[in-house]
Amino acid sequence: MAFPSDLEIARGAKLKPIEDIAADMGLPARLLEPYGRDVMKIGLGAVDELADAPKAKYVLVSAITPTPLGEGKTTTTVGLGQGFKHLGKRATVAVRQPSMGPTLGIKGGAAGGGYSQVVPMELLNLHLTGDMHAVTAAHNLLAAMVDNHLYQGNALGLDVESITWRRVLDMNDRALRNVVVGLGPKADGVTRQTGFDITAASEVMAALALTTGIEDLRARLGRIVVGYTRSGEPVTAEQLDTAGAMTVLLREAIKPNLMQTLENTPAIVHCGPFGNIATGNSSVVADLVGIRCGDYLITEAGFGADMGAERFFNIKCRVSGQAPDAAVLVATVRALKAHSGKFRIVAGKPLPEELLAENPDDVHAGAANLRKQIENIRMHGVSPVVAVNAFPTDHPSEHAAIREVAEAMGARVAVSTHFSDGGAGATELAEAVAEAAEEPSEFQLLYPSSAPLREKIETVATRVYGADGVTYSAAARKQLDTFERNGFGDLPVCMAKTHLSISSDPKLLGAPTGWTLPVREVRASVGAGFVYPICGDMRTMPGLGSSPAATRIDLDADGEIVGLS
Amino acid sequence: MAFPSDLEIARGAKLKPIEDIAADMGLPARLLEPYGRDVMKIGLGAVDELADAPKAKYVLVSAITPTPLGEGKTTTTVGLGQGFKHLGKRATVAVRQPSMGPTLGIKGGAAGGGYSQVVPMELLNLHLTGDMHAVTAAHNLLAAMVDNHLYQGNALGLDVESITWRRVLDMNDRALRNVVVGLGPKADGVTRQTGFDITAASEVMAALALTTGIEDLRARLGRIVVGYTRSGEPVTAEQLDTAGAMTVLLREAIKPNLMQTLENTPAIVHCGPFGNIATGNSSVVADLVGIRCGDYLITEAGFGADMGAERFFNIKCRVSGQAPDAAVLVATVRALKAHSGKFRIVAGKPLPEELLAENPDDVHAGAANLRKQIENIRMHGVSPVVAVNAFPTDHPSEHAAIREVAEAMGARVAVSTHFSDGGAGATELAEAVAEAAEEPSEFQLLYPSSAPLREKIETVATRVYGADGVTYSAAARKQLDTFERNGFGDLPVCMAKTHLSISSDPKLLGAPTGWTLPVREVRASVGAGFVYPICGDMRTMPGLGSSPAATRIDLDADGEIVGLS
Repeated sequence: MAFPSDLEIARGAKLKPIEDIAADMGLPARLLEPYGRDVMKIGLGAVDELADAPKAKYVLVSAITPTPLGEGKTTTTVGLGQGFKHLGKRATVAVRQPSMGPTLGIKGGAAGGGYSQVVPMELLNLHLTGDMHAVTAAHNLLAAMVDNHLYQGNALGLDVESITWRRVLDMNDRALRNVVVGLGPKADGVTRQTGFDITAASEVMAALALTTGIEDLRARLGRIVVGYTRSGEPVTAEQLDTAGAMTVLLREAIKPNLMQTLENTPAIVHCGPFGNIATGNSSVVADLVGIRCGDYLITEAGFGADMGAERFFNIKCRVSGQAPDAAVLVATVRALKAHSGKFRIVAGKPLPEELLAENPDDVHAGAANLRKQIENIRMHGVSPVVAVNAFPTDHPSEHAAIREVAEAMGARVAVSTHFSDGGAGATELAEAVAEAAEEPSEFQLLYPSSAPLREKIETVATRVYGADGVTYSAAARKQLDTFERNGFGDLPVCMAKTHLSISSDPKLLGAPTGWTLPVREVRASVGAGFVYPICGDMRTMPGLGSSPAATRIDLDADGEIVGLS
Repeated sequence: MAFPSDLEIARGAKLKPIEDIAADMGLPARLLEPYGRDVMKIGLGAVDELADAPKAKYVLVSAITPTPLGEGKTTTTVGLGQGFKHLGKRATVAVRQPSMGPTLGIKGGAAGGGYSQVVPMELLNLHLTGDMHAVTAAHNLLAAMVDNHLYQGNALGLDVESITWRRVLDMNDRALRNVVVGLGPKADGVTRQTGFDITAASEVMAALALTTGIEDLRARLGRIVVGYTRSGEPVTAEQLDTAGAMTVLLREAIKPNLMQTLENTPAIVHCGPFGNIATGNSSVVADLVGIRCGDYLITEAGFGADMGAERFFNIKCRVSGQAPDAAVLVATVRALKAHSGKFRIVAGKPLPEELLAENPDDVHAGAANLRKQIENIRMHGVSPVVAVNAFPTDHPSEHAAIREVAEAMGARVAVSTHFSDGGAGATELAEAVAEAAEEPSEFQLLYPSSAPLREKIETVATRVYGADGVTYSAAARKQLDTFERNGFGDLPVCMAKTHLSISSDPKLLGAPTGWTLPVREVRASVGAGFVYPICGDMRTMPGLGSSPAATRIDLDADGEIVGLS
């Protein structure tokens, strides 16, 4: 019998009333607002009200450098949360809200997988409580206000060529990447070139994910820079009198969403900032709530440890003031084999036959990546636990090879079969994480906020990425100088580079050395609170393929959704 | 003391638990899904489950031709609903969901006003349960699929120049009216000119408002025509394999939203199709539910009786199979005076002093409009009730003048002070409506579906608008022929003309005669289910003014919204 689809498994789930999930977490009913039957929003009052509750151990889930297929971080996050229950511990998982564009495009869903999913997956993947749409609305309100400002006479003297604020939609729509707006008669606005990004790439999304509360959000939105005057002064959302209305539009979206896993572990779902040009982490407020709701809070960061975990440590934890107690590094046999450089994995195509054959030597050949990512966790003072996300096509000798590499680095390691077995398959992992989290935390940021921007970039490049150094384009040098002069120099850096290599070249696998990081351009998300150096081509609006998932999504004769998984 | 603002009044409201509102309506809990504390979605199962409940009297609220300020139809709808309670009757009101773009633009809110509002007004005006956003997503998914189809090779042979499917956003953003998409390298799509409309103007919104259930919606979406092949064949959403995913995106949006008025009268809020180019009526499913939930269902149609009511009768009732028992015509002293042609009223400017002076003769001078609109209701076999929406600046002699005009036509008439007094001010109106609704219903459609499109257009133009005839541009003639040939000839017509005159010229007040209706162009919303002849300039994407409401909307120190009213 074939392994059932994610949607089939999800549909067979026995959901617990969401009120009971909340009660188990110690969340009083007055803080909760139902959205449909299976989701609740958690009022931000929870942060203060639960301030005296015991603090959960704070566990990050990161990964080795993934293949284009991804190595199962969300699935492992969910599986680990379920695993703790089998040890008699109360865990909460915190995950990002999936972007709807890719759900309708290539992926068909992103709620974990197999027997480790957040449910109902069709809610998670589509609309949920409307937070993404609220971000879209707040972002596009500011865009309309910018163009209206130009139309009404441009009193602030915005230099039209300098406007960086684009529009967003939660859709994969390549035709919107580069557009000209304001065509037609004068009454139809000022003609200029601009474009659309996917909503996940909005600075509003990043600000929402990094905020600590509604007043802080109001201030962050006010600081958003939409462009510059002809004399080079930044023009902000506050100057356009729009930050208040944007905050009002996000009044519900700032509240985290409570759902559950297939085994009734609480799952807090909140925000989905892009991993390429933003933090790729779920929200600070979700973690500030979740950390008071059980024995373990398991939170996930996008991409490999050089990307998501580095930003989790140096951007998210810098804002939240929270220190992680352990970090899981998800590794797979297929990804480590891929890091040997002997195979080519393409999304949407079957894996090469030779990669599936038993060959622990190939695992060893790719192990440099795992070693470097273990180091990347350790340099922040956090204990790593290597989680082998087991696939049915793996061989025991290959798992043993991963174990050997990890143990040689002094790291804990566990094989986890949460995809096929749910939480019961993740108990070894949960035990290893519990042990790691008992070690005294020595968490440290990699650089102080006061360091100059160039120093921050060079610290991440040389220490985390293993680069020999950094080169800057003339444009990047000028931008860095401008940002320092404008007072943005105290912001942390969010490196925009490929997630398919620790280096900036997606073709360099393993743990590349002897290379230099090229910074092509530097942008500032002043409202979100980071500067992002661009090291490669960063796509901020995906396209649809030749056979989009949307063509398969439909309702069946019983009115049930098909084609999502 | 100044009369309090709408937001102040709304904030002082004593809301009843929304579960209790539902219970009073006879809606069982299993059909309800909470969205936050004060709103519930009503499952469509209600239509079948309540099929045996006694049927409410079905009352339409329409109006004379309004001034640019509007004459208070929503407020009267809400007030009348509250008024019935004072007579010991159970009434439900059904209203449209306000569009968020104008809320952030000029209006600041559209939930009724004074002591006749739907609450919480800040939910109604912003996001609500996300239905508008779902329409935006479904609409833009189809747009992305169209452009992706071109990009992937255009297998269906779509003629790029013929594509009529634009994109939508719920925002006032004039710069998006005319855009060029697909600029840049080939990988960024096919370059072509298109534009954005406001979400309310989406055909998806019109289809959602006119559908009778999820399967019907799926079929309507499939019939949407996005453009034509080079040989002139229509290309549909079904051919692009997108109707299923669009339906899935609208699975929650199809369920009506239950709220309440300031006096705890149930208010079903659902859909907000544009009044200019679509029906401007709330949804069929809202009425199919509401008609089984009490003694009276009061539903509202946009603009004057020549516009909203005509479409209510000939499009909405044709679909729903429901026959109205009475129709309220909202009239104001200021609008009737304006119809004399002696005054100029401009939105956003104070009323002319002379218009506020006591002068029943000016009311008589504008009375032709009221007489014609009474006739427009009667020609559909429905009993009209003239509701004088009283303003503090009115004089008793002016109310008497309206009464005189209405009674001379044999119509019932009542003065209503629901704005200042709530339901207590609407009891006379409620009594008049109750009497009118007791008369045997002789409801009739104005034309059969089988009549040719030109005959339908001419029937509405001559009988409802009082035109001498219709002229067609060459383009319109060609389009009508094409639509008849493509099998769209059985659709009803939704006339797109100004709402500021019964004629197609906004400057012609009263009840113009001796004019001809010019049809410039004809479009088909095949999915929604109507053909719309365009008679004048129809704006489908509003702009922001020099001082948008968004600049005043903010949170106060207590986290409460200010600036919405």
